[in-house]
This record gives sequence, C-alpha cells and structure tokens, in this order.
Amino acid sequence: MKNVRSAEILCVGTELLLGDIINTNASYISRRLAALGIPVYRQAVVGDNPERMRQAIAESFSRSDCLILSGGLGPTCDDITKEMVAEHFGLELELNQEALDRMMEYFSSMGRNMTKNNEKQAMAPLGARVLQNNWGTAPGFVIEQGDKTAIMLPGPPIELEPMWRERVEPYLFERSNSVIVSKNIYILGMGESAVEEKLRYMMEELENPTVAPYAGNGECRVRVSARAKDEATASEMCDRQIEEIRKTEVGDYIYGIDVDSMENALVMHLRERGMTLACAESCTGGLIAKRITDLAGCSDVFLGGCVTYANEAKEKLIGVKHETLEAYGAVSEQTAREMAKGVRLALGADVGIATTGIAGPGGGTPDKPVGTVYIAVSTEEGEWVKLLNLSPKRSREFIRICAATNAMSLALNLCTFDKN
Amino acid sequence: MKNVRSAEILCVGTELLLGDIINTNASYISRRLAALGIPVYRQAVVGDNPERMRQAIAESFSRSDCLILSGGLGPTCDDITKEMVAEHFGLELELNQEALDRMMEYFSSMGRNMTKNNEKQAMAPLGARVLQNNWGTAPGFVIEQGDKTAIMLPGPPIELEPMWRERVEPYLFERSNSVIVSKNIYILGMGESAVEEKLRYMMEELENPTVAPYAGNGECRVRVSARAKDEATASEMCDRQIEEIRKTEVGDYIYGIDVDSMENALVMHLRERGMTLACAESCTGGLIAKRITDLAGCSDVFLGGCVTYANEAKEKLIGVKHETLEAYGAVSEQTAREMAKGVRLALGADVGIATTGIAGPGGGTPDKPVGTVYIAVSTEEGEWVKLLNLSPKRSREFIRICAATNAMSLALNLCTFDKN
Repeated sequence: MKNVRSAEILCVGTELLLGDIINTNASYISRRLAALGIPVYRQAVVGDNPERMRQAIAESFSRSDCLILSGGLGPTCDDITKEMVAEHFGLELELNQEALDRMMEYFSSMGRNMTKNNEKQAMAPLGARVLQNNWGTAPGFVIEQGDKTAIMLPGPPIELEPMWRERVEPYLFERSNSVIVSKNIYILGMGESAVEEKLRYMMEELENPTVAPYAGNGECRVRVSARAKDEATASEMCDRQIEEIRKTEVGDYIYGIDVDSMENALVMHLRERGMTLACAESCTGGLIAKRITDLAGCSDVFLGGCVTYANEAKEKLIGVKHETLEAYGAVSEQTAREMAKGVRLALGADVGIATTGIAGPGGGTPDKPVGTVYIAVSTEEGEWVKLLNLSPKRSREFIRICAATNAMSLALNLCTFDKN
Repeated sequence: MKNVRSAEILCVGTELLLGDIINTNASYISRRLAALGIPVYRQAVVGDNPERMRQAIAESFSRSDCLILSGGLGPTCDDITKEMVAEHFGLELELNQEALDRMMEYFSSMGRNMTKNNEKQAMAPLGARVLQNNWGTAPGFVIEQGDKTAIMLPGPPIELEPMWRERVEPYLFERSNSVIVSKNIYILGMGESAVEEKLRYMMEELENPTVAPYAGNGECRVRVSARAKDEATASEMCDRQIEEIRKTEVGDYIYGIDVDSMENALVMHLRERGMTLACAESCTGGLIAKRITDLAGCSDVFLGGCVTYANEAKEKLIGVKHETLEAYGAVSEQTAREMAKGVRLALGADVGIATTGIAGPGGGTPDKPVGTVYIAVSTEEGEWVKLLNLSPKRSREFIRICAATNAMSLALNLCTFDKN
C-alpha cells in the first residue's frame, strides 16, 4: 500500500452552491488530514450535476493521488457521487447485501421503517471497500486503482465525522509517513495585526515548526505546528516554540495553551480549586451560561445563572436594588457590581460573574453608545468591575461574544492567584 | 456592461486548507448570488501559494465569466490574491492614495494606530475599481477585462458581508437579467427523508419553481425558489407552490414561512399578542435565553430566565419544591412543571418555558437514558409537559438544540389559539 502524498477534497451538493448550508465538512476533513501529515492543496464544491462532477473528479486526480468526496451518497435521485466516481474508474455498481442488511438493522435500531428509496444506498462500485455507517444510513466507499484513491463519505457532518474517525483514519494512518502536531496559544486583549507584528519574524522565517495567527470573535489564536517522524518529537518542537512566543510581548496576553475556549479555561481552573460559579447576564442574555454548559461535565463547577433581561428580573431574582437601577441605570458599574454579588449569594457560589450593556443595534445613547458593556466579578473578597467600550460599528453578535469572553476572562484572572 | 451569466467563488487561505476556520464566505456569497439570479457552478479553496492560485484563477476563467475571490488582501506577506489576479490580467499594482487615506481614517476612528505593514493593502491593480471598506482595513477591488470580471473581497466575514451588500450588490444588480426569489418553509416533527418522500414528485418534476428540502439540528426546511423577470412575479410563483405543499401531509408540521428560526416565530407571535415570556433551563443551560436574545429588540417580549443547573438553583431561584426533587428527581415531569410555573411567577410573565433532561454524554441511567428531556410550558391556564425521547446516539449539542427548539415549539403551539 502506497503513501498518500497529497489530497484534495470535493464536496458535492447543490445546497452548498446555493449557500443554503455551510461547508463544515471541508474544514473538518482538512484538519484531520493535517494531523495525519497529509497536505490538502485544494477544496472544491460542485453541484449534483453529472458533467461538472465528472470534470472536477478528473481534474483532482490529475493533480493529487487521493480525492475525498463528501455528499451525494443518499437515497434521492440527485445523489450521483458514487455513480460518477465509479464511472471515472470504469467500474459497475452492484447491490452489496451486507450494506443492505446493516442499513435495515440501523433503521430498526432507530425505531423507523426503511423506505424503498433507501436501497439505492447499498449499491457499491465493484471491488470497492465498503465503510460501514453506524451513524446514519448511507455507507461510505474506498476505491483504490493504481496510485489513485477515492474515498466517499456521506454529507451530513453528524455521520461524516464519526465515519472519518472510525473508518477512514485507521485506513489512512498506516499510509502516512509523518505526523503533524499542532498546539494553539489562546490570546485575549491583543489584536491580530499587533500579534502578527510581534511574531512576524517567526511567521516568515520558520518552516518547521510553523507559526500562524488567526483571529475571530475578538480573540486571537496562534497555531504552532511541527512535523516529525513521531508525535513526541513534533510535540516537543511545538513546546520549544511556544516558550519563545511567551518571551515576546504577546506572552502577557496568553490565557492558555490548547484550552479550546475561554469557558473551558475558566471551568478547568475553578475545578482544580474546587470552586463553584454562577452568572447573571443582561446583554449576553444566556450566552455565558450556554457556553459553559456546552462543556459536558460542567455541573461540578457551574451552579446556574440568571438571565435578567428586564429590570424587574434584576430586582426579583438577584436582589439588585431598585434605587440603584433608578439612580445609575441598568447599564452601570453599580448595577453590574450588584448583579455579580447578587447571583453569587442567591446561588451560594464562590464566584459570580455579571454582564450588563448595550448590544445593539438599537438602544444606544450619546452617553452610553452601543458597545458599552460593564462586566463584573464577585468573590468572597469583593467585587471587581470593568468597562468595555466596544466599537458601536460591531454587530450585536460580536458585542455579545466579546462581552461574554471578557467577563469570563476577568473571573479567570482574578481567580488565578497562584499565577501572580 | 454585460450580464454576468455564471460565477465561481475562490476562497484563498492556508487556514481554510488546514481546516482552522470554516468557510462561511462561500455559502454567504453563493446565497446572495442566487438571489440575484446568478448561478454558481463551483466553489474552490486554495492556499496562499502563488502557483496553485495562478492555476485556479486560470481554470475558473476558462469556465465562467465572473470570479469572486475572498481573502488574501491583508497586510501580511502571505496575502497575494491581488498580486495573482493582477498578474492574470497583465496589470501592474500602484499605490491608491484615496484607499490609503480611507484606511488611515478607519484606524483613527477605531482609536488604533496604523502599523506600517497596512500600507500594502492600499496597493491597487491599475484600472481596478476600488471598493471602499468601512468595516475593516483592506479595500476590495473589481477588475473588468473583455467579458471577464474579477471581484476581490477581504476574508473576514465581518468585513466581507457588508462589503458584499453595500459595494458588490449595487454593482452586480444591473448586470443580472432575472431575479430568484426563495421562500423557506420551516418544519418540526417530520424528518428529512419523510418530507422528501412526500414531496418527491415536486422535487423531481418541477423546474421553476424548484422545491428542495434541507435538514439540520432536528428540524427540516423546504426551500421553494422561483426565477422570473421581476420580484413580484417570482414571489407569487413561490406562494402558489407553498399552498400546494400545505395540502400535503407535510402541511401539518409547518410552523412558519420565512420565520428564520423557532425563536423568532415564537417571539413574533407573542409580540403580536402583547404577551411576555420567561424561561427556566436545566439541560439547555441558557441556550433558549441565548437564542431568544440573539434577536435584537426581543426585550418587549422576553423578561429573563434562570439557568437552574444545580438542584439548589431550582429551589432557590424558582421555588421548585425540595420534596418534588427528592421524590421524582430533577429530570421528571413534576420538576419540569414546577420549573415552568415557578419561573413564570418569579418574573411575572404570561408564559413560562422549562427544560430538564440528560444531554449527555454522561449522566444517563437505564430508566432515564441520555436524550430523556422533559419540556414544559406554563400559562395562566395551567401547565403542559411533554417527554422527548431523543436518541442517546445523538451529540450533547444536538440534544440541547432539539430540546430548546421543541420547548419553544410547545409554547408556540399552546399560544396559537387563533390558528386552531
């Protein structure tokens, strides 16, 4: 069996070309291929159109030795991926009884009846390896011919992702001759172009490991990737580079390595210390709680929270004083402080977090324009409040995400006694 | 000026090929082009590599008369999109003073200093139309040569999307000779393959309008698209087709047309009736509140909510009885009922929504496996509870989204008196 030197990804579906769905499969497959040390030179999307698919398949194989296709394996008349790939390799299709049996079993395990049109999914190109699909109905396929390999996977990410992990990776692993390890440095409070300016020499001069910054949602992430024969060596190369980055100005803004997200960094940190958390949200409207409870097993740290959108909710649920709201308004240092303390006491938590601000697009005033957000943290030792002046040009979504991230960051910093 | 008959999209960035970011630009641009009646035949992604970019640009123009590029216009040394497109058309780059001035102004309006490397972004291909960027630093460009057009836009979606609306659409609008209108039918409670089975004859036989189902997050959406000379005609063609769909079995599961989401359908509905809403969330952990407060201007309907993750939070914040939790457990009909009623009374709302369940992956028992979720709604007239048995094979994320959507659906159905 030969090594895969490079791959291309072809995602099939008119719904992708119409923009009805976002192509998460291409990024998923790319990320996993990178981890196997297989470079991806191109991703493409074509519709359920025989002629354009035929052309795209031929083009890809003229450049690369491995083509990974997603979508178009389903039961409907529009699903023609398997047919086009089989045609490219000059193979017939035939009914695969094992695939059919497994599919019927899958339907019965979900308590559903298999409609007749599903049978089409059990047709396999002659000589293809069938990749059993335990997460949906359409099986995948691998065709090898000479030094060319086509891997076909179903389109829904909820099926494609486990199919990749459980079926494709074991198959590809032995074919890859090196491993790439990547580590991510999480940064808050320094913009992408400033980070790039500070790390420019690393970005330009280093080839292995590589250093690349990415921005999004008001945060910045620097990815350090190293390629080596084995994982331990690549990992150590990354670690040495991360130490170099810590020595630059960027170091002051790092909140974690491979922590995945601010919420995860905070929850892990509180868990280590046996501390509990509660939050009171106005402008973020549940986003902090949602992000924390995205994390399975957060219940040892997270007790709960209040979304106190209306003023009455702030008074009734977490005891913000009516006079405070009257005198200073809902978007104020005083209200933020009382919210953080109020929710901490109401739930008996060690740490309380609060947000109150103007997420827009409406609701801004000359004094308090859109983007004005107070974040607060309360612990037994007192309350801390910080004013964020986010740009009123930013979207509601961006302002809410930033407010949530910064509020969690304030809690993380205040609770990081051993780091100071 | 000639019509654009078809377009291709080329997104540039190694971070896309590494799978570090998801390509939302391709779907955004595709969607907007469809609305202008311009078909997209292919989307592609290449890295910041001169040779591969050169090849991709040449291939696209051999098939299509318009190529839209995103990314690679930034200040770093990796940004080479403009250079490669200019090379394709045989054009030199020169500093565009106006673009430079606007960029400096943008930096100062954001209260930031412009670093030297940003100047590169003001270099324009000779004769190109400069698309001013009010949402970031890198301007976009349009090059027309013969019947070929290249449109270059910055990569960050937060810049690309307003650039598209405010700069590219006005430019493209007059070049399109027909309009596509699409309407979306929102469906809950019937799976995609069942919907497809019921609407199969429409999907296969109709060419204009077209009918296509899409599934995601436990919901189904059917998109009806019509192409005509003007918007009114296309819109009417869609409406007639939607009436046909209402007459099928699918009709019973429709919860709205072009409502965008369940949360929007619910908030609009309550707003029309002057009703207010509060929610108490356990397994959804703030997701309902987050989804509702994603909607700007929801504060006339949404008062707030409680994320009662721990049992104590359920007792303290919304008065769930200790005995109820002891006797039936947190995941039970009785607890769901008390949560919905408790939060409605605590906040003085007209409608209370609650969720309690096991989102997994841990926490399941033989009696109450992962996917067991009780949803409840409380109004002045009483409480309604529904048990969802979602598949334990589903992800935590999927179970949470489904639970949130179904809880809001229960409230929507109960409050839709005039429909029954």
